Amino acid sequence: MVSLYLASRSPRRRELLAGLGYRFEVLDVAVDERRADGETPARYVERMAREKALAGLDAAEGGGAARPEGLPPVVLGADTIVVVDGKVLGKPRDRAEVLAHLERLSGRDHRVLSAVALAARAAGEPAVGVRLSRNRVWFRQLSPAEREAYRATGEPADKAGSYAIQGLAAAFVTRLEGSWSAVVGLPLNETTDLLARAGLPFLAPPGGDAAGAWPATAERR
Amino acid sequence: MVSLYLASRSPRRRELLAGLGYRFEVLDVAVDERRADGETPARYVERMAREKALAGLDAAEGGGAARPEGLPPVVLGADTIVVVDGKVLGKPRDRAEVLAHLERLSGRDHRVLSAVALAARAAGEPAVGVRLSRNRVWFRQLSPAEREAYRATGEPADKAGSYAIQGLAAAFVTRLEGSWSAVVGLPLNETTDLLARAGLPFLAPPGGDAAGAWPATAERR
Repeated sequence: MVSLYLASRSPRRRELLAGLGYRFEVLDVAVDERRADGETPARYVERMAREKALAGLDAAEGGGAARPEGLPPVVLGADTIVVVDGKVLGKPRDRAEVLAHLERLSGRDHRVLSAVALAARAAGEPAVGVRLSRNRVWFRQLSPAEREAYRATGEPADKAGSYAIQGLAAAFVTRLEGSWSAVVGLPLNETTDLLARAGLPFLAPPGGDAAGAWPATAERR
Repeated sequence: MVSLYLASRSPRRRELLAGLGYRFEVLDVAVDERRADGETPARYVERMAREKALAGLDAAEGGGAARPEGLPPVVLGADTIVVVDGKVLGKPRDRAEVLAHLERLSGRDHRVLSAVALAARAAGEPAVGVRLSRNRVWFRQLSPAEREAYRATGEPADKAGSYAIQGLAAAFVTRLEGSWSAVVGLPLNETTDLLARAGLPFLAPPGGDAAGAWPATAERR
């Protein structure tokens, strides 16, 4: 038996994980999000997920969060970036950057890299497993008026690459290759694989090993 | 100005269309869903979408539904099927069929065909446009215990192919090629394209031609 934590401020990640029926606590951790010199986008997103999970493990063990039943903590961290022409698009800083992102994504494909990490203590030492999901998304051509109308909805404000595939931007997407949940922010197949290895199998029957993390049917989506 | 209708009983389609901000009424239409002899899966799913849209147009014009402001009706119909080894998997009839579907989908890819049709009256005659979305979905290997646990959640009951990609089955999907919304049940890029051609542009500003179908910001998701 373990206690599951999600070290992420993202409401989308919370929703995705809760949608699978897992019970967990949210940890608000801060890590230095600057990309290192020469660090590839893939290495960068993996490192961010790993650092968030390890910072979360620290917080969970240090009493920085409620520890139901005092069970050993298992902590998920995740990071998602949009990459186009080798450039990483983060969250937009202002209106101009939203419009610049949308213009850059219009009428072509881009990559979305999404990493999930799981940290737990093994034989006294913090251990972390990381999984990377590589995805490609195609946008239809967006007119300047459409880009401005989309910006004005407010949806792009806190999203990497200035769009939400699970929101209004779904209408712009002509094709996806990879994992939809990864593009939203948490690759669910990879996440459930990591959780199963940590003793929290997906769809495990209540009363089994994962009872602490698996709710009753009525609580499922 | 037109009035938008969705001729579908599916709560997923309603949610997807409402998520884009469109205002519409739901029509409950019945069509003969039997596949014709020698009809390909693609022709079949296109015909189902077309027949639902036309039946919806009939119902909307015949006073079978509320007609806000008496505007001319524009009616969406849609259909989605799962195809594997040339066999169309529909909604499961019983528990045994759920398990048979899941066993068949386990550890391999399958196709999901999703069609959307838009019916309206043009120069006095019913006219309909249809768009087909072809998609491929890969499932990881599912053990007999996992298939039974997933069946027991109740989620497969009313879904073509006995799974919901937007639900717990997201954890089974290792890869998608195509459109996520199409696999859920309504290809949103194709839908907004049809709607734009019918005078209901996506993200059109309130007060414009699409004012009747485009809600105020506060009503958006």
